Amino acid sequence: MRAMLKGIAASDGTVCGQVYRLVEPDLTVQRRTITHLDNELNRFHQALEAAVSDIETIKTRATKNLGADSAQVFSAHIAMLQDPELKMAVEHEITTQHVNAEAAVSKVAHDYEQSLKALKDNPYMQERITDLHDVIKRVTAKLLNVTLPDLALVNHPVIVVTHDLIPSDTVSVNPCYILGFVTDLGGRTSHSSILARSLNIPAVVGTQTATQELTEGSTIILNGDRGQVIVGPSQEELATAQQEMQDRTENLERLAKLQHHETTSQDGVGVTLAANIGTPSDMPNILRNGAEAVGLMRTEFLYMDTDHLPSEDQQFAAYKEVVTAMAPHPVVIRTLDIGGDKPLPYLKQKPEANPFMGARAIRRSLTHQEAFRSQLRALLRASAFGQLRIMFPMIATLDEFRQAKAIYDDERSKLTVNQVPLGDVKVGMMVEVPAAALLADRFAQEVDFMSIGTNDLIGYTMAADRTNQDVGYLYQPYHPAILRLVNRVITAGHNAGIPVAMCGEMAGDPIAVPLLLGMGLDEFSMGAGSILKTRELIGKLNAHDLQSLVETALNSASTSQEVITMVQAAVPGILN
Amino acid sequence: MRAMLKGIAASDGTVCGQVYRLVEPDLTVQRRTITHLDNELNRFHQALEAAVSDIETIKTRATKNLGADSAQVFSAHIAMLQDPELKMAVEHEITTQHVNAEAAVSKVAHDYEQSLKALKDNPYMQERITDLHDVIKRVTAKLLNVTLPDLALVNHPVIVVTHDLIPSDTVSVNPCYILGFVTDLGGRTSHSSILARSLNIPAVVGTQTATQELTEGSTIILNGDRGQVIVGPSQEELATAQQEMQDRTENLERLAKLQHHETTSQDGVGVTLAANIGTPSDMPNILRNGAEAVGLMRTEFLYMDTDHLPSEDQQFAAYKEVVTAMAPHPVVIRTLDIGGDKPLPYLKQKPEANPFMGARAIRRSLTHQEAFRSQLRALLRASAFGQLRIMFPMIATLDEFRQAKAIYDDERSKLTVNQVPLGDVKVGMMVEVPAAALLADRFAQEVDFMSIGTNDLIGYTMAADRTNQDVGYLYQPYHPAILRLVNRVITAGHNAGIPVAMCGEMAGDPIAVPLLLGMGLDEFSMGAGSILKTRELIGKLNAHDLQSLVETALNSASTSQEVITMVQAAVPGILN
Repeated sequence: MRAMLKGIAASDGTVCGQVYRLVEPDLTVQRRTITHLDNELNRFHQALEAAVSDIETIKTRATKNLGADSAQVFSAHIAMLQDPELKMAVEHEITTQHVNAEAAVSKVAHDYEQSLKALKDNPYMQERITDLHDVIKRVTAKLLNVTLPDLALVNHPVIVVTHDLIPSDTVSVNPCYILGFVTDLGGRTSHSSILARSLNIPAVVGTQTATQELTEGSTIILNGDRGQVIVGPSQEELATAQQEMQDRTENLERLAKLQHHETTSQDGVGVTLAANIGTPSDMPNILRNGAEAVGLMRTEFLYMDTDHLPSEDQQFAAYKEVVTAMAPHPVVIRTLDIGGDKPLPYLKQKPEANPFMGARAIRRSLTHQEAFRSQLRALLRASAFGQLRIMFPMIATLDEFRQAKAIYDDERSKLTVNQVPLGDVKVGMMVEVPAAALLADRFAQEVDFMSIGTNDLIGYTMAADRTNQDVGYLYQPYHPAILRLVNRVITAGHNAGIPVAMCGEMAGDPIAVPLLLGMGLDEFSMGAGSILKTRELIGKLNAHDLQSLVETALNSASTSQEVITMVQAAVPGILN
Repeated sequence: MRAMLKGIAASDGTVCGQVYRLVEPDLTVQRRTITHLDNELNRFHQALEAAVSDIETIKTRATKNLGADSAQVFSAHIAMLQDPELKMAVEHEITTQHVNAEAAVSKVAHDYEQSLKALKDNPYMQERITDLHDVIKRVTAKLLNVTLPDLALVNHPVIVVTHDLIPSDTVSVNPCYILGFVTDLGGRTSHSSILARSLNIPAVVGTQTATQELTEGSTIILNGDRGQVIVGPSQEELATAQQEMQDRTENLERLAKLQHHETTSQDGVGVTLAANIGTPSDMPNILRNGAEAVGLMRTEFLYMDTDHLPSEDQQFAAYKEVVTAMAPHPVVIRTLDIGGDKPLPYLKQKPEANPFMGARAIRRSLTHQEAFRSQLRALLRASAFGQLRIMFPMIATLDEFRQAKAIYDDERSKLTVNQVPLGDVKVGMMVEVPAAALLADRFAQEVDFMSIGTNDLIGYTMAADRTNQDVGYLYQPYHPAILRLVNRVITAGHNAGIPVAMCGEMAGDPIAVPLLLGMGLDEFSMGAGSILKTRELIGKLNAHDLQSLVETALNSASTSQEVITMVQAAVPGILN
């Protein structure tokens, strides 16, 4: 039965393949009286072993991708499953109560949880409750013969279908096995979409019903350009899709030849194409995609997949790894952008009515200096290993920048006194608050560099939350107001003799690239998947000629659509 | 015992007076067995009469302030209390069960509520449950000898102490009896503060603990300039406060002489001083304060104090009243800014993660056209009675303005076909989204006028929610980025030959006024309480000389503090 699912085109390309459902299964346990006790004990032992074996596999992958520290939680899980007391308690329940293994496991887990809960003054024991739920879920799934989906366990190419991809789902992904993503939720700028584009994996998001309609193992065609999923495709459609996949592969192979090329326009203007990354594990992928620098390293990952603030040494290790891998090219690391829309449970932040306009990023760092200072020390120590640049997010006033810089200077002097080896560090700012863009000429007198964060800058300038579907139409990177702000920042930077970068989605957008090149942007930082395409595009553009396009767009365009039309007229064939 | 409470200075002036606590009292009922039945029946009858009498008083005041329609609810309450069935049921309960009157009332109310709830398919009956709670609360309070605070019942001058002032608390206020406000919550831009300033009443908000610490009837001194409340003041402090009150009265009397003056700078530049209003009942106060126009009429009040959308005729009546009262001077009426931060329960809006950046104002009007068209028709019909101007809020793109304008044109033609008398209407926009300010030159080609809404414009430009105390420091009207945006809008308007107004708090701010006059702002619209002070201030300023202050502030200032220093140097004594 052929059917079509519509969604949002999140990452280009067509693939066909089998569905892998990353969906929480039903683990409801029925209590049964059993007679063959030995048989039941056997089932239990096998489930226990199989669960341990799965966790071992996940642990190995996580160690490889995230380092031994982050994988420790899995060792704790294994230890819990191998605890002889737990084992004996379940065996005792089965043999004395004549119940099935899953009911026995459930009963023992419940009792254990109660005794943990009773120790309510012991935070360590309270944290064990989460671990307990996790391991019991695994054993129960084995007993019910239900597969607990886990991307770390995928061992052949599949199209992942899920409600919404969250960062922790993806830490252990092997990109070779993921042909594409389909999600129920999300938009073009959600985590799933950004991840898909950075991995060059086709994706359709926001289908609403994918997890209800797509069954495990069925064959589908995913068209990431059109935002379509074809269920039960015809032979003809499969053949076409396979042709498209082949064209895409050829296209990627052609682009791959640009991996070690410099990025230069037709008339010889050179720019830097940098990558945005989230974790050190992104480095091989961005280097394979020809990144010439890291233009934005987000540091939230260090804080998110854990239940406490990372230590200075943990941070240092991560920053050092990235800086070393990129040396002698620069790495721009953004200090923590937490709070507001990215709350951390263990920081006990109070909820805000409008978190995007709340106490996030540098605002929070300035009032919670301990974590900020620890991050700055880790960054300073890592600076000895390459070209490290520190960038403060959400700067709105010069006072904020000066305060942050003074804290940085203070930590730097202390480390110098203690003879810690330090490199040359540039300290700059993210331009993502409209006030900062409007006052870029004053900021440019005091910062070492500026990087325009377009995702938030567009959101605030249009007064629209890009994650809110009802106002999604206002996320307009080509709105002349946005172009005017961007141009103002670039001009201000150049007048002051400092470089200007852009690290939002817009930097890799084919309609925006000619405009940004014409404005004189120095560095374009983007998801790894856009780098080679952008290098190819810039090679075909004449930077000097584009200046008049920029003039016209800035002075005469009234709407986004007018800008698009102007770019298409100036650069024929730009949209493909 | 002398003590000091600190809060936020919300509205200038010092007053001393007695505390009136506007705080929900404890109405817990104890069941008692009683022997003197006649006595108890008497108590009940007296309580019933006293409750009816209170509601009559409130109804009279509400009719005067809000019109007969809005006061209808009180007639319904009276009818409910005079229902013989209710009366007999309570009497029966007292005499058969030998219980005290409050317990009997409580029991009967509970039974009545259950029978109303059972009629769950009848929405009319479901609404009666709210009415029932209200009237039972009044009778119970009378029986418990507890005063139900209600500003409509205040009959001598008091200082109102409350948790937070909500719009419905204040509809029936007699300003003569309210010396000042003290609240637990709120900031300088909250409803209580804006109301206090528009009524010229001193206020301290955000004290956190005022309702806990201030007892009914105690004497306090409220200092609205310093944000202080003195509890149990000394004789000396009382004498000083009384002197300050007298100075203030003299000051107000001096200003009152400017009521019918034009607003002209020392060098003869004339501007319009207009008022921001919320309801037709604000008209006498703004005229007394010398308003030359209505620069912003918010229309939310029509939607908020009710449980359904207002009819076209209700709206027409309100608009006509204001337009007539102001004629021949203009009235700018803003179409509905609802949704997001101002949800209406009966519109069933879904909650948003960042309502300030959500589907509010014109965004909602364009997708929910029925209410928008009804409002436009009411406005058009009212235009026959004076100078009416329609302003669309939250415009971010020209497409939005064009869509809204097309709907307006459509409704206008339909009314014309039906020969409804219409006046000349100008259609303009509120400039409060940064994108609109940045693109003001393009908008100015298509709109009849622009009015800068600084409260939101500052919020979005600084990416800070002004109602969030943690980022309150970012609400900076003098930030050079804000001044640059404001100046850009004024220049763009004048280049296109259209007038530019400002209708945010900033328009009446003494530090901002010299800058705005220097920029050439045509109309300053503010809370009534600031009009005469601003008229006096402008009379002392030389508009031409201020142009160089503007130049310096725009081109050389880096921070708000630098701007303040520049203004103080250019206009000595500006801060008093």
